[in-house]
Amino acid sequence: MYELGVVHRNIARADGDTAVALGKLGTATVHEAQGRTGLMQPYMRPVYVGAHAAGPAVTVLLHPGDNWMLHVAAEQIRPGDVVVAAITAECTDGYFGDLLATSFKARGAAGFVIDGGVRDVAVLTAMGFPTWSKAISAKGTVKATLGSVNIPVVCAGALVNPGDVVVADDDGIVVVPAARATDTLAKAAAREANEGAKRARLASGVLGLDMYAMREPLAKAGLKYVD
Amino acid sequence: MYELGVVHRNIARADGDTAVALGKLGTATVHEAQGRTGLMQPYMRPVYVGAHAAGPAVTVLLHPGDNWMLHVAAEQIRPGDVVVAAITAECTDGYFGDLLATSFKARGAAGFVIDGGVRDVAVLTAMGFPTWSKAISAKGTVKATLGSVNIPVVCAGALVNPGDVVVADDDGIVVVPAARATDTLAKAAAREANEGAKRARLASGVLGLDMYAMREPLAKAGLKYVD
Amino acid sequence: MYELGVVHRNIARADGDTAVALGKLGTATVHEAQGRTGLMQPYMRPVYVGAHAAGPAVTVLLHPGDNWMLHVAAEQIRPGDVVVAAITAECTDGYFGDLLATSFKARGAAGFVIDGGVRDVAVLTAMGFPTWSKAISAKGTVKATLGSVNIPVVCAGALVNPGDVVVADDDGIVVVPAARATDTLAKAAAREANEGAKRARLASGVLGLDMYAMREPLAKAGLKYVD
Amino acid sequence: MYELGVVHRNIARADGDTAVALGKLGTATVHEAQGRTGLMQPYMRPVYVGAHAAGPAVTVLLHPGDNWMLHVAAEQIRPGDVVVAAITAECTDGYFGDLLATSFKARGAAGFVIDGGVRDVAVLTAMGFPTWSKAISAKGTVKATLGSVNIPVVCAGALVNPGDVVVADDDGIVVVPAARATDTLAKAAAREANEGAKRARLASGVLGLDMYAMREPLAKAGLKYVD
Amino acid sequence: MYELGVVHRNIARADGDTAVALGKLGTATVHEAQGRTGLMQPYMRPVYVGAHAAGPAVTVLLHPGDNWMLHVAAEQIRPGDVVVAAITAECTDGYFGDLLATSFKARGAAGFVIDGGVRDVAVLTAMGFPTWSKAISAKGTVKATLGSVNIPVVCAGALVNPGDVVVADDDGIVVVPAARATDTLAKAAAREANEGAKRARLASGVLGLDMYAMREPLAKAGLKYVD
Amino acid sequence: MYELGVVHRNIARADGDTAVALGKLGTATVHEAQGRTGLMQPYMRPVYVGAHAAGPAVTVLLHPGDNWMLHVAAEQIRPGDVVVAAITAECTDGYFGDLLATSFKARGAAGFVIDGGVRDVAVLTAMGFPTWSKAISAKGTVKATLGSVNIPVVCAGALVNPGDVVVADDDGIVVVPAARATDTLAKAAAREANEGAKRARLASGVLGLDMYAMREPLAKAGLKYVD
Repeated sequence: MYELGVVHRNIARADGDTAVALGKLGTATVHEAQGRTGLMQPYMRPVYVGAHAAGPAVTVLLHPGDNWMLHVAAEQIRPGDVVVAAITAECTDGYFGDLLATSFKARGAAGFVIDGGVRDVAVLTAMGFPTWSKAISAKGTVKATLGSVNIPVVCAGALVNPGDVVVADDDGIVVVPAARATDTLAKAAAREANEGAKRARLASGVLGLDMYAMREPLAKAGLKYVD
Repeated sequence: MYELGVVHRNIARADGDTAVALGKLGTATVHEAQGRTGLMQPYMRPVYVGAHAAGPAVTVLLHPGDNWMLHVAAEQIRPGDVVVAAITAECTDGYFGDLLATSFKARGAAGFVIDGGVRDVAVLTAMGFPTWSKAISAKGTVKATLGSVNIPVVCAGALVNPGDVVVADDDGIVVVPAARATDTLAKAAAREANEGAKRARLASGVLGLDMYAMREPLAKAGLKYVD
Repeated sequence: MYELGVVHRNIARADGDTAVALGKLGTATVHEAQGRTGLMQPYMRPVYVGAHAAGPAVTVLLHPGDNWMLHVAAEQIRPGDVVVAAITAECTDGYFGDLLATSFKARGAAGFVIDGGVRDVAVLTAMGFPTWSKAISAKGTVKATLGSVNIPVVCAGALVNPGDVVVADDDGIVVVPAARATDTLAKAAAREANEGAKRARLASGVLGLDMYAMREPLAKAGLKYVD
Repeated sequence: MYELGVVHRNIARADGDTAVALGKLGTATVHEAQGRTGLMQPYMRPVYVGAHAAGPAVTVLLHPGDNWMLHVAAEQIRPGDVVVAAITAECTDGYFGDLLATSFKARGAAGFVIDGGVRDVAVLTAMGFPTWSKAISAKGTVKATLGSVNIPVVCAGALVNPGDVVVADDDGIVVVPAARATDTLAKAAAREANEGAKRARLASGVLGLDMYAMREPLAKAGLKYVD
Repeated sequence: MYELGVVHRNIARADGDTAVALGKLGTATVHEAQGRTGLMQPYMRPVYVGAHAAGPAVTVLLHPGDNWMLHVAAEQIRPGDVVVAAITAECTDGYFGDLLATSFKARGAAGFVIDGGVRDVAVLTAMGFPTWSKAISAKGTVKATLGSVNIPVVCAGALVNPGDVVVADDDGIVVVPAARATDTLAKAAAREANEGAKRARLASGVLGLDMYAMREPLAKAGLKYVD
Repeated sequence: MYELGVVHRNIARADGDTAVALGKLGTATVHEAQGRTGLMQPYMRPVYVGAHAAGPAVTVLLHPGDNWMLHVAAEQIRPGDVVVAAITAECTDGYFGDLLATSFKARGAAGFVIDGGVRDVAVLTAMGFPTWSKAISAKGTVKATLGSVNIPVVCAGALVNPGDVVVADDDGIVVVPAARATDTLAKAAAREANEGAKRARLASGVLGLDMYAMREPLAKAGLKYVD
C-alpha cells in the first residue's frame, strides 16, 4: 500500500487559519461535527497535560526502531504544520526527543504525533512542544532503513493524507480531510454555539431528559420505572 | 443476568455521613478493612491527579457506544451520590463529557466512575468534577438502545449494588456493601488509628522486621542470611 | 534460575558518586552510552511527574500478592540505594505504600522500582519518594511466602544484579552493570557534551540532514524527492 | 465484599438437567435468551477446541499465586458441577493442572473455569477435561493463604453465585442465575427452534434485509444507496 | 472522515482471477512483493487453523455493538468477494455468527474479516467459512445505528478501499490496492519462483550467510567473531 | 548491558542428553524442580499444538524489524540446539519463516523461541519445526543493523545464557542454567516419580485434602465450614 523511499515536497495543505479555528473548538466537537469519524485510537496520549495543537499534516512513515525519516521530514515542515509519524509495525522505541523537537520547533512545527514512543519528556514539557505518543521510552533508534515523507499513512487507526488538518488535545487526536476542513469548521462552530446555552440549562438543574425531549422515545423503547 | 430497560427509583442508600467518613480514610485503608476485597481493576484511573469522591452508588448499565441511560440516571441522582456505569462489553468510547458532568454536578453528584471512556477532560479537571475511567476518548456515542439504572452491575471486576458505598481516590476505587458500611468504617478507622504510630516508628529508623516481629516467622519459613 | 529464601548481605555496590553522576545525565543519554541496552520495558512509569533517582541496586524477588521480602530488604538498604523488586509472575497488587516508603526513606533509599503495583500514591508524591511501577492499585498483600534479597533478578525485561547502577526518570529506567559504571559515565558525559552545540545549531534552523551529513547516505539508500 | 476463610457446604444448585439442556443450546443462544447478559469477558478461552460443559457452579476465591482453596473446593464438588475460580487480583500463574483435573474428574466435575492460568494442557486435552482460562502457564503456586468456597464471586467480569448454571463452549462462558434457569431454557429453546428455518432461508439466498423486514427501518433511519 | 449512512452499489472490483492467484502465493509473499506494506495488525487471527481466502473487498463500517450494516452488506456481495468490517471504536462483541455466515456463503462470499468479535465458531469451522477476527465472543449485538457499505475503511490498521484485493491466511491479512493487483502478482510470483531454489540450497546445509553473500556486509558493519 | 556486534563461537553447552531428559519431564515439572523459577512469560505460545523441544541455547539479540543476526546465528547451531531470540524492543514483526526454519533444521536445530513474531506458520507446522513466539505476523524484516549471537539475553522475562537448557512445550518455556541441569534433572525426575502414585490415588477419589494432609493447616489458618 505504501510507497517507500519517497519524499513528496509539494502537498496540498489545508488552510492554516481553518486548522487553527478547528483546534480552538477541540477534538470532541470537531469529531462530532464530521460524523464521529477520523479519531485516532485512545491509546494515543499527550506527553503533558494541556498540550494542544492543530495544523496541516506532514506525514512520515518509519521502519521499526529507525527514526531516519524524521530528519528528512524536518525539511518539509512549514510553520504551523503538525508532523504525524506512523511505524510499519508496533514498536515502542523512543523515536523522538529533545534534539528533534528543537529542530521541528525551529522549523515552525505546531506539534508532533507518533504511533510509537518518545523520550526526553521532561524537556518536551519544559519547551512546551505539543507531542502525542503511544509510549514513553528512553530507547534510541538507528538510521538505516528508508521510509517515506508525505504519503498517506494510517496512524493509530486513522487515515492521514498529507495536508489534512490534525487537531490534537487532552481528549485525543482527530483528522479532518483537507477538502472538508471548511465545511467541518462551520458544523463544529454551529455545534459549539449551541453548547453554551445547553450547559447553562443543565447547570441550572434542567435534566437532559427534558432538554433533549427523551422521555417519549425512552418510553417507546420500553423503559420502565419501578418504585 | 441483568434486568434490561428498567429504572429502580427507590434504592436503599448507605448512610451519606458514613460514606464520607470512609472516603476520608481512603481506598487502601477501606479495602484492607473489609478483607482486601471489593476493589475495581487497577486499569481504572482518575481523570486528574488528586480526584477523590465517596458516596452511595447510583448504578447504570450501558450498551456499547450508547450513553442514553446516563441521561436517565441523572434524574435518579441525590446529593452525595456517586454514579457508577458499566458497559455490556469492552468499548472505549467517550460516554461522558462536560455537559453530562454539568448536569450530574447540578444534581449534586459527588463523582462518576465508568468502565469505559470519557472526554472533555480539560473541562472536567477545571470543574473539579471527580471522574474515574478506563480510557479517555473524544469519540461520542449514540442514544438508541436501552440499558438500566439502579440494578446490580459488575464494573471493572467489582460487584456494585445500588446504594453501596463507592470510595474512589488516586489509588483506585473500592466498593463497600451498604450493609457493611458502618462495620467497615469502624474497622478502617481502627486501622488508621494504628498507622500514625507505626509511621513515626518507621520514620525513626525502626525496621518493620522488628516492629511486626517478623524475624522469627521468617527464620521458621527457612530464610537464610549469607555474608 | 532464582535462589529462593536467601538474603545476601554483602554486595559489591557500584560507586555512589558515579551513580549520582549517571543520574544527572538521564536515562536516554545513559542508555545510548551503553549501546542502547539495559532499559526496562516502557510500561514502567513514575508515580509522579519529575521523579528521578539513581543509585546502586538492592534487589528483591517477591511471590505474587506477597510483600514480605520488602521488609527484609529494608534492613539491607544503605543510603543512596535504589530498591528494585521483581515478582515471580505478573500480578498488579499494591505491594508498597506509605509505611514501607517511610521505612525505606528512613534507611536512606534513593528510590524504589517494582514490576508490580504500588499504593498511597498521594502520600508518595507528597513525600517526594521517587517510585516507578507497572500499576497503581489499592490492593494489599500478604506476608506468607519467602522470596530473596540481593540475588540477580529480571525486572520489567532487564537483568539487575545487586549493586548495579539503576538510573530512573520520566523517560524510564536503565540498568548499568557495576563493572561498567565508570566507563559508561565517561561515554555518557562525552555524549552530553556534544548535545549542547547540536541543540543550538538545530535551534538556529540548521537541519539534521546537514548537521549529520545525511543527504548522501539517504541518496545512496535510494531516497527520491518528488515535486 | 468477599467473605474470606469460609466454605459453604450447602448451596442451592440449579437443576442439573436444566443445566445440561442449556449447555446443548450453547452460550450464544443462552446469552441472547437472557437479554445479552451474564457473559464472561472474551479473553477467557477453552484449553482445547471443542471443549463444552454446563452445570451448577461451585465457586472458589483464590489469593494470587496460591491454589490452596482448589483442594478445599474438590470436596464440595457433586457430579455435574462446574468449578469457577476467581483470583483477588490479575495473576497468570498456573493454578490448575493434571493432578487437580484428575481429582475434579474423579469427583464428577463437568468442567473448570478460572480467571487465571492453567498448565499441563496436553494432559487436560488428552483427558478431555473441559477447561477455560485466561492464560496457560507452567508456573506453579503455593498453598499458604485462605480464600473461600461457595461465596458469590466476580469471574472475568461476570457475577457467579454458587449453584448458578455455567454454560461454556468455544464461544465463551455464560452464567445463568439458578432462579432463572428454567425460564431461560424455555426462551433459549424457543429461540433455537426459530433458527433452523431462518438458516434454511438464508442458505437458499434470501437476504436478512428481507427476512427480517429491515428495508423500511433502514430507509427511515436515512440509509442511502448510491450507484 | 467516514461517510455515514451510505451504500455504494457500484465499486471497481479488482480482477477475481488475480485475487485468487495472489491468495495462492500467501500473505507473506504478497506483502513482501508490495514493499512490506498493507498488512493488518497481527492481533487478527483466523477462527480455525488453515483458513485462507482471497478476493475483492466489500467494506462495511459498523457502530460498536451493532451489526445492522452486515445485513445491508450481504446484498452487495458478489461471488468471490471478501467482506471486511471495521468498527468505529474498539469493541469485542460478537457481530457475526452462523446465520450471517450462511447468508454470506449463499451470496458467494469467499471470506469475512472483522476488527471485532465473532461467535458460533464451531459452526463456522464445520461450515469451512474462512473468518478472521480480533476476538471470539458469544455476545450478540443490536440493529439500531447506521454505518456504511463500500466506503474506504481502516480495518486493524490497514486502509481498505472497496474492490481492493484482500488476501488472508494463517499468517494474517494483507490488502492490495486494486490498481496494483496485477503488478503485485507479477512481483510476488517472481519472488515465489526464487524461493524453491533457495529452500533446496538451505535444506542441503548451505548457509544464508553464503547464499545471500552476507559475510562482507556484516564485516563492514563491524561484526566480530570471538572464540 | 548487552555487548553488540559480537558472535561468541565457543559456548559451554549443557549436556545434550540431560537436556533431552529434561524435555521429557516437561516445563511444569522442570520449573517446579528448580524452585518455580526460570519461566518465560505466558504470552509465549507454540505455533502448533503439541510442539515440544529441549536443548542447549544458542542466543541471538535482534534489532526491532531486523532479522540479520538470525542468519549469523544459523552458522553457530549444533545438532540439538534451541535458538532463542530476544529483540531490543517490543516489536511484533515476522522475523522467522519457512526459509530460516529450513536452514535451522538443516543445521540440526531442535527448536526456535522468539520474543517477537514469526510467519509461514502453515509451513512450520507441516515441517514439524517446533517454534514458540509472541505473535504471528506476515510482516517481513530488513537486514541492516547488527545485534549479537551467544551473549546473555533476557527473552520474555527470563535470563538465558548461551548453553543453558531450554525446555519448551504446550505449557510454555523454562530455562535451566547449564550448571544446574544435572541437579535439576534429578529433582524433576524424583518429582515425576511421585506423581504417578498421586494421580492414581486422586483418580480413585481420594481428596488432596487428605492425601496432602491439609485439613489441619487449613483449620489452623482459620478456615470455617458453614452448613
